[in-house]
Amino acid sequence: MSILFVSATDDPGPWLRELNRLLPEHPVRVWPERGDDAAIRYAVAWKPPPGLLASLPRLEVILSLGAGVDAMLADPTLPDLPLVRMVEPGLVLGMTEWVAAQVLYWHRNQHAYSAQQARGVWQPLDEFLAQERRVGILGLGELGAAAARALAALGFDVAGWSRSPREIPGIACHSGPDGLAALLARSDILVCLLPLTAETRGILDAELFAALPPGAVVINAARGAHLVEGDLLAALAGGRLRGASLDVFTEEPLPAGHPFWRHPAVVVTPHVAAKTHARTAAASIAEQIRRHERGLPLENVVDSRRGY
Amino acid sequence: MSILFVSATDDPGPWLRELNRLLPEHPVRVWPERGDDAAIRYAVAWKPPPGLLASLPRLEVILSLGAGVDAMLADPTLPDLPLVRMVEPGLVLGMTEWVAAQVLYWHRNQHAYSAQQARGVWQPLDEFLAQERRVGILGLGELGAAAARALAALGFDVAGWSRSPREIPGIACHSGPDGLAALLARSDILVCLLPLTAETRGILDAELFAALPPGAVVINAARGAHLVEGDLLAALAGGRLRGASLDVFTEEPLPAGHPFWRHPAVVVTPHVAAKTHARTAAASIAEQIRRHERGLPLENVVDSRRGY
Repeated sequence: MSILFVSATDDPGPWLRELNRLLPEHPVRVWPERGDDAAIRYAVAWKPPPGLLASLPRLEVILSLGAGVDAMLADPTLPDLPLVRMVEPGLVLGMTEWVAAQVLYWHRNQHAYSAQQARGVWQPLDEFLAQERRVGILGLGELGAAAARALAALGFDVAGWSRSPREIPGIACHSGPDGLAALLARSDILVCLLPLTAETRGILDAELFAALPPGAVVINAARGAHLVEGDLLAALAGGRLRGASLDVFTEEPLPAGHPFWRHPAVVVTPHVAAKTHARTAAASIAEQIRRHERGLPLENVVDSRRGY
Repeated sequence: MSILFVSATDDPGPWLRELNRLLPEHPVRVWPERGDDAAIRYAVAWKPPPGLLASLPRLEVILSLGAGVDAMLADPTLPDLPLVRMVEPGLVLGMTEWVAAQVLYWHRNQHAYSAQQARGVWQPLDEFLAQERRVGILGLGELGAAAARALAALGFDVAGWSRSPREIPGIACHSGPDGLAALLARSDILVCLLPLTAETRGILDAELFAALPPGAVVINAARGAHLVEGDLLAALAGGRLRGASLDVFTEEPLPAGHPFWRHPAVVVTPHVAAKTHARTAAASIAEQIRRHERGLPLENVVDSRRGY
């Protein structure tokens, strides 16, 4: 009854330590080492090579190392088994902090003040209170709901949008196509925390930007493929948008010479908004494995038709 | 029974509108127009010319337009009358937002990422959760307590220090000289929100910087005179401090050619952290005037010996 750990990018050391400590009865194999394929019941994985999971005859549960499962779902050979999204406090907390940092950065004109400072210019700009700034959150899952709550606690006028109706106390929650138009029309700062699905791919495009109030700011911390990069550049060039903060990109690392690097209205961070912290995340994985073995329903299981 | 409005920097328009609306029985004179000196019972003032208030024979209460009263107290002719500090929600909210913006900016390495972006460098840095970041607040008055609460709500490990003991739920409150050393030793990010008094002038000096953990960040939103500017430059040059965010300066506007302007580790904002919003602030002034006329004790009265 072993666990296969699969990731080309995560250091397996801390994960092995934590999983061995929490689940001493389950040997952990680190791919490409696999041991006896028939002994593997659980795969703990980030972007596994296509076909790998299908080759494990007695696999029972797939546990994602990251919050997004779009890369895994893109594998047509993905076995029809429960796929558990990563939901762990460190990832949600980190994302919430990054979103709050970027919203406050634009809200308090830090981008403009830094540009003024570089030119030695002392010029107070119009300052608004958070209660006068309307923030819209696209996506009200674990990450979006946490960001919405934190921004509301900071005093912002927060609303959110999700595919299916949600209720979050203190947050105006919109849903469906009509709800999206209503949300966009009132979002001075728009934050994308959507899952990447066929429906949301390219959602941040010229049409969406045109539905925002003039001078709005767009913040994307979800997936690079949510954004049509050329449309963003055009909306910034036309003055339709004031600026953007981007943590994710179509191609990562962002290629040398990409126009975002030197763009005066774009903040680039190198995919650091939220990372899975081995210590808190291994506990979440261990909990789901224990639930499975006790016959309890798994939590945070992906609905493969919805894509999240 | 008139009110004298005195400010060389505030547009009197919105104040007149609000004060006339809230206190229709009291004519408002806008300095240098004074009307009948003997009719003036209240002065609503920001940096009044020295001697002006002393020349009003029947003045009863002085109401400051700003939170800081150090400029007013520096006038040796200041009459021995109740001096009311400005405490109004807009000022406290604005300051809290600015402090949260700057703390998150340094916490999430935004300064370093912006420098990397300018060079086209994709390099994730060590990221910590807010709960792993110790923030220290100097000053636990209205502004400091609000900032401490907001930062604790964002997950930071917050402690504070004030001259006399304070209690704020969820915040470790230190006081007195020993308390200051304890606070500094655990402050990865130090925020100054102290009143400016003889005791706090120049408190942000080489000795204080040496008591912070190596690589700490200093944020000053109180008064320029709290900071010994040369000591900050030396602590940054020596690598003792990682950076600083400054909204206030010994001389404002910050003079052309001042080393802060082009310093790679200093964020300069042009005294915009908190401004008094006429609408909310006029209500606070009107309330104190009404309390005075009903014989109720005034609130937020400055203790001139303490200086705040």
